[in-house]
Parts: sequence; C-alpha cells; structure tokens
Amino acid sequence: MCATCGCGHTHEVITLEQKVLAKNDELAASNRAFLEGQEITAINLMSSPGSGKTTLLERTIRELTRTMAVIEGDQETALDADRIRSTGCPVVQINTGAGCHLDAAMLREAIDRLQPARRALLFVENVGNLVCPALFDLGERGRVVVVSVTEGTDKPLKYPYMFAAADLVVVNKVDLLPYVDFDLAACRAYVASVNPKAEVLALSATRGDNLDSWYDWLAAV
Amino acid sequence: MCATCGCGHTHEVITLEQKVLAKNDELAASNRAFLEGQEITAINLMSSPGSGKTTLLERTIRELTRTMAVIEGDQETALDADRIRSTGCPVVQINTGAGCHLDAAMLREAIDRLQPARRALLFVENVGNLVCPALFDLGERGRVVVVSVTEGTDKPLKYPYMFAAADLVVVNKVDLLPYVDFDLAACRAYVASVNPKAEVLALSATRGDNLDSWYDWLAAV
Repeated sequence: MCATCGCGHTHEVITLEQKVLAKNDELAASNRAFLEGQEITAINLMSSPGSGKTTLLERTIRELTRTMAVIEGDQETALDADRIRSTGCPVVQINTGAGCHLDAAMLREAIDRLQPARRALLFVENVGNLVCPALFDLGERGRVVVVSVTEGTDKPLKYPYMFAAADLVVVNKVDLLPYVDFDLAACRAYVASVNPKAEVLALSATRGDNLDSWYDWLAAV
Repeated sequence: MCATCGCGHTHEVITLEQKVLAKNDELAASNRAFLEGQEITAINLMSSPGSGKTTLLERTIRELTRTMAVIEGDQETALDADRIRSTGCPVVQINTGAGCHLDAAMLREAIDRLQPARRALLFVENVGNLVCPALFDLGERGRVVVVSVTEGTDKPLKYPYMFAAADLVVVNKVDLLPYVDFDLAACRAYVASVNPKAEVLALSATRGDNLDSWYDWLAAV
C-alpha cells in the first residue's frame, strides 16, 4: 500500500519514502551488476491491469528462439505464472498482497528462486498499476510501458511519471482500433511531450500486427 | 507514491502506514458526518486507467435530472474536469502529482472548494488505479469499482482488495464483448468469491446498454 496522505504525517512520510527509495536504488544497483555479470537482459513490463502484458509475453515466448525466463508480479493468484508455464518457459510468481508494485528486493529473491540461464532474456511483469511501479528501479536493462487502445488517448498526460520512466511504449490491441475512440498520432505526441526519448510501437499481441518491431527492439536493447 | 519495499524498513513502513490509515479514517468519519448533515450522497468511483469512469459520468449527468457535482482525481492535467465542466455540472479537479490515490483530506479540501448543493449526488472519480485507492476511506456513501471487458475476466481475483471494498461493480464497455475474450458469468463468480455482497451491473456507457440499472442503483444507495 501507499502512504501519501497530506494529513499531518506529511514530513514523516516524505522522509520515509526517501529512505525507502534510496535503499531500493542500492538494491537495484546490486541487481543490475549481478544481471550484467550474467549477461542477462532484464525487461520490466509495466501497465494498467488488463493491457495485455501476459498475452504479449505468451506470444513472444512462442515466436522467439532465445533463452527466456519470466518473473510475474500480481497482488494475488498464480494465474499469469500458470499461463507462462504452459508455454514451457521457466517462471516464478511474486504475490505482493496489498502491495502495489515490485521492488528491487522482491526481484532479487525471485531471481534467486528462478536461477535464469546465463545470457537469458528475463521478462519481469510488474503489478498492473500505471502509477507506483514507475518509482521503483529494479535493476532492469529496459523499461516497457504497455498501454492498450481501449484505455484512451490521454493516458501519457494523466500518468506522466510512468511514461517518463519508459524506454519503450507499446500501444497494444490495435486490432480493436475500429471499435474505440483512440487517436494514435495524438497518443504518440503525448508520449513525446513527457518523454522525447521513448520509442513507441503500435501492435496487437492477439492478432500479431507489427510484432517484428517488438522483436527488433528486444534484440537491440 | 507508495512505500512498501521489504528492504529493511519494513517495520518502520508498516507502523507509519498504520498511522496514516488511522488518521485517514478519522478524517473520513468527519467527512461522512458532514456529508450526511448536508444529505449529500457521495459515490467513490474507482478503476484501472481508461475503464470509462468519466464517460459514465458524462452520460449520467446528461440523462439524470438530479442535482449533481463531481470531484475529479488524476495525477496530472484537468482533462477530466474539462469534460465534466462542458456538461454544465459543477466540478473540481484534484491533481495528486506522484500520488496514487485520493485520501479523506484531499476530499475535504475539494468539497470546501466545490461547495456542493444540499442533497446533491456527489461523484468522486478516484485516480485510475486498481490497487491503492481501495485502502483509503473518503467518507463516501457508496464505492463503485468500474472494470471494462477489455481488461480480462480475472481482475477480481488478481486485485481482490479493490473488489472486496466495492458496494457495486460496474462491468463497462459491453459493446466490445464481440471483439474480446471476456466471460461475464465467470467474472460475476469471481466478484462473488471475493465479495459476496457486491452487486454487479454490466453496461455500456458509450452505447447506453443497461444504464437504467445504474440509475436505479444510484436512486437507492
């Protein structure tokens, strides 16, 4: 859970948050050094609930021939880990309970359980939340924000912290574009306004549109 | 932002979270007493980003003849308040910055600015986040969780804290059912498994399906 309330504990909360984030950054740096030593490419996937992260991973695992592994983050259930496991890919589920994001300590514990292969592509699917995960470095190589066309064009402006943290923005579910009010060009411009360096790829994980561009990004990251 | 990290500050974080929530509950009780005194019915709308809360409010304001007012919560922008204002309804925007939820103190400040009419129906649109807002009582009369059919059937199981907090679950965007893999009966069963008391209404705020049941719920709450 989260502790910003503006109700009299503000100074205490801010001080503690700074300590928590500083400690997290230390552990993230340690994760990063470990992952680089193993030549493991870790990708942190973040989004709202239901944007299609797990579906994108299922398809990626089926279609790429690289050695891959997955760490799944959810408040409860192992539903996503079960979906990944059925592809044959090694996977570990983290349940955060009331928690709203993964942190570097959780990632390290999951890596110790998962023991991903040297040079693996390691996907970390964060808790579905377009707010809190943005602030917690995990030690990953790349940060991907997935947003689906059903969520509306204005999300980069309304949740700028998340989009500012992204190396890549995946606009998913383009197969639903005929049925929803979504302006891809405007969404690209909004992403650029909060994060000029982020790449944007529009694709459909279910129908397969433009997945080559995603695989090219993964090969280059 | 949120402060659960499991990285050595755990005890300190939990203690502070308890203090923050206790202080929030006090302020929420004060809000509740104030709202009841004014016979104002406050409805807290919570969901993932992009589930259609604002669209549901726009339509409700156009179609109901009751006196209404709206408080909009977003990390940044006044885009949602602008949409509500264009309907002619009184509205105040709260921007939480890096914050991930509304709290009782923010609501009270917004009520003081908005000055909703006696006996008004007051909608509070929370920050788009299916995790953190569940823990913060605002002093509202009713809690509504909106989930769209594009988000997938399993959300009540994966985000049980939010669904356990709901008086009503609105399953929105049923106009998109022909194009997505969503099982309404299973979703109802999942809601019942985490919250047997919650009502579930399936509707489409854009196309207008089943809005009467929403208006009936609002009249009875």
